[in-house]
Amino acid sequence: MTSTPDTYERLCEFVRETALLESIEALLGWDERTYLPPAGGEYRAEQITYLSGRIHKRRTDPRLKDWLDELAASDLMADPHSDPATTVRQLRRDFDKRSKLPQRLVEELARASVLGQQVWVEARAADNYRMFEPLLKQMFALKREQAEAYGYAEHCYDALLDDYEPDATTAEVKAALAGVREELVPLVQAIGESHKQAPVELLKRKFPVAAQEAFGKEAAAKIGFNFKRGRLDVTHHPFCSGMGPHDCRLTTRYDETFFPSGFFSILHEAGHGMYDQGQRPDQFGLPPGSYVSLGIHESQSRMWENLVGRSRAFWDYFYSRAQIAFPQALGDVPAAQFLFAINDVRPSLIRVEADEATYNLHIIVRFELEQALLCGDLSTADLPGAWKDKYDEYLGIRPPSDADGCLQDVHWSAGLIGYFPTYTLGNIYASQFFAAAEKELGGLHEPFAQGDFAGLLAWLRRQIHQRGQCYTAGELCEKVTGKPLAHTELIAHLRGKFGELYALK
Amino acid sequence: MTSTPDTYERLCEFVRETALLESIEALLGWDERTYLPPAGGEYRAEQITYLSGRIHKRRTDPRLKDWLDELAASDLMADPHSDPATTVRQLRRDFDKRSKLPQRLVEELARASVLGQQVWVEARAADNYRMFEPLLKQMFALKREQAEAYGYAEHCYDALLDDYEPDATTAEVKAALAGVREELVPLVQAIGESHKQAPVELLKRKFPVAAQEAFGKEAAAKIGFNFKRGRLDVTHHPFCSGMGPHDCRLTTRYDETFFPSGFFSILHEAGHGMYDQGQRPDQFGLPPGSYVSLGIHESQSRMWENLVGRSRAFWDYFYSRAQIAFPQALGDVPAAQFLFAINDVRPSLIRVEADEATYNLHIIVRFELEQALLCGDLSTADLPGAWKDKYDEYLGIRPPSDADGCLQDVHWSAGLIGYFPTYTLGNIYASQFFAAAEKELGGLHEPFAQGDFAGLLAWLRRQIHQRGQCYTAGELCEKVTGKPLAHTELIAHLRGKFGELYALK
Repeated sequence: MTSTPDTYERLCEFVRETALLESIEALLGWDERTYLPPAGGEYRAEQITYLSGRIHKRRTDPRLKDWLDELAASDLMADPHSDPATTVRQLRRDFDKRSKLPQRLVEELARASVLGQQVWVEARAADNYRMFEPLLKQMFALKREQAEAYGYAEHCYDALLDDYEPDATTAEVKAALAGVREELVPLVQAIGESHKQAPVELLKRKFPVAAQEAFGKEAAAKIGFNFKRGRLDVTHHPFCSGMGPHDCRLTTRYDETFFPSGFFSILHEAGHGMYDQGQRPDQFGLPPGSYVSLGIHESQSRMWENLVGRSRAFWDYFYSRAQIAFPQALGDVPAAQFLFAINDVRPSLIRVEADEATYNLHIIVRFELEQALLCGDLSTADLPGAWKDKYDEYLGIRPPSDADGCLQDVHWSAGLIGYFPTYTLGNIYASQFFAAAEKELGGLHEPFAQGDFAGLLAWLRRQIHQRGQCYTAGELCEKVTGKPLAHTELIAHLRGKFGELYALK
Repeated sequence: MTSTPDTYERLCEFVRETALLESIEALLGWDERTYLPPAGGEYRAEQITYLSGRIHKRRTDPRLKDWLDELAASDLMADPHSDPATTVRQLRRDFDKRSKLPQRLVEELARASVLGQQVWVEARAADNYRMFEPLLKQMFALKREQAEAYGYAEHCYDALLDDYEPDATTAEVKAALAGVREELVPLVQAIGESHKQAPVELLKRKFPVAAQEAFGKEAAAKIGFNFKRGRLDVTHHPFCSGMGPHDCRLTTRYDETFFPSGFFSILHEAGHGMYDQGQRPDQFGLPPGSYVSLGIHESQSRMWENLVGRSRAFWDYFYSRAQIAFPQALGDVPAAQFLFAINDVRPSLIRVEADEATYNLHIIVRFELEQALLCGDLSTADLPGAWKDKYDEYLGIRPPSDADGCLQDVHWSAGLIGYFPTYTLGNIYASQFFAAAEKELGGLHEPFAQGDFAGLLAWLRRQIHQRGQCYTAGELCEKVTGKPLAHTELIAHLRGKFGELYALK
């Protein structure tokens, strides 16, 4: 006979052991993208496949079900936001979802993802959509099958979205993103017609890499990333990876002749990293010590990158330091010019190079198209044309090629369908949270201009980071801001900022 | 019913899977010593402990015994040097040794090693042997117990030596090292009395770290280390770690005002690394694809560091390059002066800073003392005095403190008893192998002076690397050099080289 507290302890112990394997897998992944010798890739894949298999086995271990069944009926569930209730609820979710997928489908998805990415690389390089199309078609068929296996209440897209944004519904995300689109299309148009141009050339002067690294680290540390519990390295595609309760690693890439590339990646990844560092170390690997959703994660990175890092207040403090770090590039540049340059808005073809405002339109194109592809309202054969039409409609430009059109992102080839909207959800949540913080803390411009970012970070820690998964993203938003997910604050922020910079009426 | 070939396949499959875990553990260890954030140590220890446990479990899995029993009685064993026979023999060794240790002893040894190293760090910093002595006493008692559990034919030291130098006996190692000592003590004395002094000051000029790194990498690549299958990073205590069939990582540390520190560590570790890279990738993790012994591993590092890297021929090729890399430090230094400087011989207190000749006397002191401590001929209370007496006798200098005396090495605190002699065995084997290679290849000075090191490396690959564990160290030595382990070639090399440099009669 065991008591319920014993069962809870046993469950946590088991999950902590799984987390050891998951954190090791994270190190393998980080190393693969930073330091792995070129010839080491094949064996690294074997190591990761082996670990993934062990992890999946543990996450679907029948003992879990027994423990969870017992605990679900116990007093521990009384307060749904308590650690035990959160742990049981979230582990159950994970267990049920994993158990619903037939082994064959898991393997086919894994195979299609590996093959898909390989062919995507070639097809993109050759600007040859036809080469990629059969694989994309197969991928969407498999993902449809996955959605059916998961099951859903309303929209088959719900089932996939849930993997990245748990508990969110297609309907609410659709409403929020449609709201963004309706307001943003005319705003971007107005900016284009303002005939003001940001002086972006000055960001293309020479910014020595060593100075960029030093300045980026100084800024990341200043806003609150703890380098005793983390580090910063170089990679091709910046990312942040937590691999222990006190080990969170940021990566970036530097372009010697384009300052924003390295610097804003660092702020962005540091935002993710501070969320990771703000989790409760005693709950590492358990739901109360884990992030809520990709949208909430992204809200943290976007907030520090854009709402903080591209603000006037931030540069009131940092600009003189930047001039010391880059005397040749910035010595003769007035702060206002620099601020305008890093806030340049103009429609472009490539999502990852887009500015703070138009970025969301890139996302909305993808969000709408992937829903249509999944539900069969659009065939993969018709994707290139549909993509171009939407760019025309929302951004006012038409991609001349598929390489710079529907072939530009890796996501679909890897089976990441339902992932894109979390980027814009991040922007929406970020604005909502930031507005709430400003209201509660009584204005943030003053402290930022003094180099004091601790107030905002402490607020985020308390309101978001330390809550782990004890609330869903939607509940968290309501609890912290008093309102559900809504595009109002994001649009107000973009209108306010760009209205001033571009002197819109 | 399974056939014997099936069993062999199954065995190899199982061991390869264990190797996946071992290689992952190697990455965790490498990362800990290179990039791990300061606060990440505690969780890293948990990760490593977990993996070690899994690995130990697999290495003592009862299925192994069944498979090995079946295979031992099969035709596959006909040729003892074949892959299957080697695999079965070596796995059996490992299985039997591990199975002989009671779980309690394994745990006590692990605990004593962790605690021992912690206290050793403090005791050394405080120059307080008394603080460390009780732990050292306990460690030797545990190691004696371990030796008894393993069992041995003649000398209880045999049992421990076998962990690092399998199949070697105390008697043969004793004879070889005594031979070295008898010849080396008078040689070092004669050098001291020659009144010639190497111009070591010139190595203490300024050698910028970035230039050291570039030059060290160039040299490592030139002698044959493949950077597509490996890398070089910075650490406190240089090491080499293989973590996959195509992933071998070197580390070094740079001293801006002492050139040899970084450079010769790189050559040394590259020597280890080329042995690792020379193993058969298809046998990765299996005995035919693994190193024979620490002595043989060290023979490779010492050969490239000393017999190649400190030779006149090597610098005939590299010196003009070094002058270009370090124009300020070496621009005005004649090659002969530089060569003498990097071959400075003088008795010193610290092993890791010792020169090519006196290094062996440091080892012999430790080898003799650890035998006496293990067998009870010397009590840990009397160690400091015995240490000083031996330094007096063999090196002609008396350590003024225990910090620079018997507290200088981490080995004993970590339970590495029987490990030290493998350093000098490495020097002995290196000289024997090098003499055999010179004989077979018809002189190596010429190609080295042309920057051609491929002939020696190909010979080592063929004669040593690709043989894995198919021969014991002793068999390998006989097969490759026609002679058993003997100090003759090492002494001939040291006499020849230093006789010339110091103009001895």
